[in-house]
Amino acid sequence: MNINGKHYRTIWPNQAGNGVWIIDQTTLPHRFELVELRDVGDVVRAIATMQVRGATLIGGAGAYGLALALQDDPSNDGLAEAYRRLLTTRPTAVNLRWALDLVRSAVLALPPAERGERAFCLAGKICDDDVATSQAIAEHGWQLLRACWMDKGMPDRLNVLTHCNAGWLATIDWGTALAPIYLAHDHGMPIHVWVDETRPRNQGASLTAFELGCHGVAHTVIADNVGGHLMQQGMVDLCIVGTDRTTAAGDVCNKIGTYLKALAAWDNAVPFYVALPHSSIDWTMQDGVGRIAIERRDPAELSQITGRTADGRIETVNILPEHSAAANWAFDVTPARYITALITERGVCPASRAGLAALYGAAPASTFVVGSERHALRTQQ
Amino acid sequence: MNINGKHYRTIWPNQAGNGVWIIDQTTLPHRFELVELRDVGDVVRAIATMQVRGATLIGGAGAYGLALALQDDPSNDGLAEAYRRLLTTRPTAVNLRWALDLVRSAVLALPPAERGERAFCLAGKICDDDVATSQAIAEHGWQLLRACWMDKGMPDRLNVLTHCNAGWLATIDWGTALAPIYLAHDHGMPIHVWVDETRPRNQGASLTAFELGCHGVAHTVIADNVGGHLMQQGMVDLCIVGTDRTTAAGDVCNKIGTYLKALAAWDNAVPFYVALPHSSIDWTMQDGVGRIAIERRDPAELSQITGRTADGRIETVNILPEHSAAANWAFDVTPARYITALITERGVCPASRAGLAALYGAAPASTFVVGSERHALRTQQ
Repeated sequence: MNINGKHYRTIWPNQAGNGVWIIDQTTLPHRFELVELRDVGDVVRAIATMQVRGATLIGGAGAYGLALALQDDPSNDGLAEAYRRLLTTRPTAVNLRWALDLVRSAVLALPPAERGERAFCLAGKICDDDVATSQAIAEHGWQLLRACWMDKGMPDRLNVLTHCNAGWLATIDWGTALAPIYLAHDHGMPIHVWVDETRPRNQGASLTAFELGCHGVAHTVIADNVGGHLMQQGMVDLCIVGTDRTTAAGDVCNKIGTYLKALAAWDNAVPFYVALPHSSIDWTMQDGVGRIAIERRDPAELSQITGRTADGRIETVNILPEHSAAANWAFDVTPARYITALITERGVCPASRAGLAALYGAAPASTFVVGSERHALRTQQ
Repeated sequence: MNINGKHYRTIWPNQAGNGVWIIDQTTLPHRFELVELRDVGDVVRAIATMQVRGATLIGGAGAYGLALALQDDPSNDGLAEAYRRLLTTRPTAVNLRWALDLVRSAVLALPPAERGERAFCLAGKICDDDVATSQAIAEHGWQLLRACWMDKGMPDRLNVLTHCNAGWLATIDWGTALAPIYLAHDHGMPIHVWVDETRPRNQGASLTAFELGCHGVAHTVIADNVGGHLMQQGMVDLCIVGTDRTTAAGDVCNKIGTYLKALAAWDNAVPFYVALPHSSIDWTMQDGVGRIAIERRDPAELSQITGRTADGRIETVNILPEHSAAANWAFDVTPARYITALITERGVCPASRAGLAALYGAAPASTFVVGSERHALRTQQ
């Protein structure tokens, strides 16, 4: 996607092939800074401090981290140590483990001298594949957006509501929920996005608003409380969100607050779509509400807010009374019955076992395309 | 209610009878400061800058403001000028106009020399009457809370979720939605409150958490996004909120986001109560969603957040990208069908025309008790 008219990905190799550049996401939206990562230690820090975040971006960064480690020390011990260091940065990140496993298994049989280059090349292909997945989601979702816009008589503005950040900053490029929006915008459709600020971490206000703005997509940030009112008043044509995990029955685990918007969409007959790559589908699980354990995070994410002062300093302030407790659940589960359809890289389907099976087969084994090779993968959990 | 064990109201006369004390609500929860208002100019500033806020508190403050003006200049011109200055501070505040009208009509027939004292006395009675209303709401709501607690086998903790601030800081004492909670706490019931932070103005995090904490009521602040998840997981026994306006059919206009919580309560069979004084009922209106015009406020309330830094300074920070638009609707409407019951000073009733008529008669004329006198009032709109 574009920033000031220049195309960027969220991670890309440097010219010498001995490092990668990233966009530091911790300083957004207040400062746009590029950081060069030159060794595995740099990558470990970047993931741990959330300079890079978002499921597939973490995977891509981890793969590059392993490649940089192998450029310095291609021994089996060096590989094992780098794998361990990278994995422990975000132990629950499904895509990180997946990408590290992929690179490790691809280089283990090679002579050490060839490992670094092979891993670096493979990391690039992991990133390219992610972009292709996002582009396919963009294409399928854009058909939906266009149909909605035509059905409504091509109004001056199609209003889409989104929650959290499922944009290109969370992937390598394009994003998931925002991918169809970018494609619609690029095709000249007059699209406007209601951006939930997405407390407590404010990924909507700080990342989604930033990336939409940089790419020139019209948008308005609103408090998370507002969407229901807008839907009651006919000011939302459809909702699109991403997902962290989708059960085989179509229940969607996504950023906390998603469920409330799905309820409001249901109550007001507003279509509610979820965009996802196949890698987010958990084929082993049916009942999301009953079975997905929801991560509780540091209450400081709620009580402390960082922003810029009138004179340009970045400050963090505490907004709670000193002795009040706070609690911070990071995700919730939207039951499949409230979801109009899932938008995947293979097409659009009902949020149901039958719907997913129609696209992926009854008990699919995920496949990962790297150039002309096909690596059969264990289904991610 | 109590702060550090000492009982306070939100406004009270000074010892000499020539001024009032208020709690400055703009510095909460970070600093607790009392301010003495000695003339009508002080009162005008206090209301305009929201040192005092909340429907019935604004009414009480306005009445005292008019009294202080009459102590300085009891002429008809002085009265008219003070009335005008006070009313324009918050032109849409129903209770402000109501209180000013009441005081003005009570003193107009008196000789100027008697007006100041009479108005000051009447302002005190307006405040006392508001406290009596809150206490009656507390009593009726507490019966509901106790019944819920007994039905569940007297658990170690009854979990109540509330949104925004409908506590004693929004009234003269006790509050509306929080009044039954205080009474339950004072009766020794183990009650715990989930406090929605209530973006964008954060009245939950800054005022509700503060007042519950000062009074010793267990509570946990959560992001507005969290309530749906808690209800899905059985962690909310009931919800109680306040209201800014209730239609004759039982639709409830309250702080933005209330509707989303009512939907989640409905979806999870959690009782959803609304506490209100009769003065918030708009007998002229049926359809809240279609007919209530929702106030849009300054987007800066969303983009700018004030808190205290680690070293104790109060700072305001901007959290949005520089060129992103923001929009700020202050209220939404919860349709009556999602409301379990209304808790009023006259008792508990279904959120419906029939329910309200059973308590107030079919076409009630509100009455206002001042000592032994009864003033027939026009129904507020």
